[in-house]
Amino acid sequence: MTLGHLVAVDWGTSSLRGALLDADGRVLEEQSHPRGILSVKPGGFTAVFETLFADWMRPHGTRCLISGMAGSKQGWVEAPYCPCPAGLAEVRGKVLEIEPGRISIAPGLSDSHDGVPDVMRGEEVQIIGAMALTRLRDGLFVLPGTHNKWARVKNGMVTGFRTFMTGEFYAVLSQHSILARTLDTSAPLDEAAFLQGVTQSENGQGLLHNAFGARTLALFDRMPARELASYLSGILIGEELRTQSVHSAVEVVLIGAPALTQRYQLALQAVGNQARTLGAEATWAGLHALHSPSHRQS
Amino acid sequence: MTLGHLVAVDWGTSSLRGALLDADGRVLEEQSHPRGILSVKPGGFTAVFETLFADWMRPHGTRCLISGMAGSKQGWVEAPYCPCPAGLAEVRGKVLEIEPGRISIAPGLSDSHDGVPDVMRGEEVQIIGAMALTRLRDGLFVLPGTHNKWARVKNGMVTGFRTFMTGEFYAVLSQHSILARTLDTSAPLDEAAFLQGVTQSENGQGLLHNAFGARTLALFDRMPARELASYLSGILIGEELRTQSVHSAVEVVLIGAPALTQRYQLALQAVGNQARTLGAEATWAGLHALHSPSHRQS
Repeated sequence: MTLGHLVAVDWGTSSLRGALLDADGRVLEEQSHPRGILSVKPGGFTAVFETLFADWMRPHGTRCLISGMAGSKQGWVEAPYCPCPAGLAEVRGKVLEIEPGRISIAPGLSDSHDGVPDVMRGEEVQIIGAMALTRLRDGLFVLPGTHNKWARVKNGMVTGFRTFMTGEFYAVLSQHSILARTLDTSAPLDEAAFLQGVTQSENGQGLLHNAFGARTLALFDRMPARELASYLSGILIGEELRTQSVHSAVEVVLIGAPALTQRYQLALQAVGNQARTLGAEATWAGLHALHSPSHRQS
Repeated sequence: MTLGHLVAVDWGTSSLRGALLDADGRVLEEQSHPRGILSVKPGGFTAVFETLFADWMRPHGTRCLISGMAGSKQGWVEAPYCPCPAGLAEVRGKVLEIEPGRISIAPGLSDSHDGVPDVMRGEEVQIIGAMALTRLRDGLFVLPGTHNKWARVKNGMVTGFRTFMTGEFYAVLSQHSILARTLDTSAPLDEAAFLQGVTQSENGQGLLHNAFGARTLALFDRMPARELASYLSGILIGEELRTQSVHSAVEVVLIGAPALTQRYQLALQAVGNQARTLGAEATWAGLHALHSPSHRQS
């Protein structure tokens, strides 16, 4: 059997990205649209998909593999969760066909700590792709975003992970709390203020206290308004790092948008850690790895 | 000189409460209004005051002492901050006259940790009142609210304090984050779910992670919707207690609305601490103590 092209789709909550990959996983074309699952009415997924990808799907033998929130209860088809520990084989084993022989969807991952479940949808594919691209089979894979994921990988398997609402806390605090009165989230990242926030988070007094510092520093004119958002970002990301006890010897892979991975890299450098960073290529490599039979033995 | 009555006013951000006290500090009448400083236009404070309190102020020799955000930049008159350590004498020394011989306003308190300022306005009067009512001169005085204050008192002096945005985090998370989709903040306190949240906060993974549990417990039907708000409240208050390392031997005084002090009392009982609780009476006792010359020697 000759392998055709793969239409790789990352269908998230608020946006959708697609890439046309050749049999070796090379990206031939890319597209992205503000058509996240929240913008699609129930029953409307097939139509949206055909509108966006009919051209790419036309050649005989072309297949599509989707990851992300399209596999959630509010998505196209509810795909299962694959419990940790899980690697390429386990995730591939739970890929669900939406249209047999044509369109499939990847499962999410689940974990549990003290009876409290944790979940991801889409990030597992990025981790699989990052493992393929970096050839790392052990390390800490960090995926910044609205709901950040910290996944521990051992011998090519995700042994467990935790979600941190860091991105969402930043959004609600800077838009809806008293901090909104003085913060300017449109200001560019101020590295010094960001690192000052990271350092502040190490005082052991917790986020509930340290976030208030972004208010009082403004109140007493101790920090210019344009630096406050960076300071709050440092407080939040520093708090996240603190709980994960990352030090210089841990192999860390950051996967996500450069504007976010840059901040984590700065904070990690402050503790002597040289993290690697990956972007969208991790998603495409992960979908290619899940699809490609050449990986079926790994 | 015979002392007349005191009109004691706690003028906060969103509401205003007043009490008419006799020379011994007994409450003769009380009133409260939704006329916090945010509802008063610049220059409009005198008129609002006279409308609400002219009757109480009529008898010759009646004086008024105000505490709270009316002393902030956005308030009636900007009153100073009294730096910690500060007790009754220090706070009284910074009382500012608005109308000499008739209306005065109490200062706030300020503290600083690692160059980050902290402030309170109004709570210092409640702490002074609580010391007078309980005769305690050492302990931890906790004032739950939108911005909770934890004040350490030694030998009748507030030696330092920290603010925690616990109440505001609860509000923005339950109204504006993904948790809003499943939380029902109108449900009554569920003590078991609340204490489950308190326990969960002790796992050392931090608020950014533990708050997400309120989402996944709902997603997996592990906790009924009516219990989720109590669980989140427990996560937040537990986090606050964790950073303060409160144990059974510390003398804790909770000052605030019963609906809030009840939660802190529950969480403190879980670590073996029997906290005392006080309500509005602490404010009136504090304003009376600041006003009364019988205390001027203390």
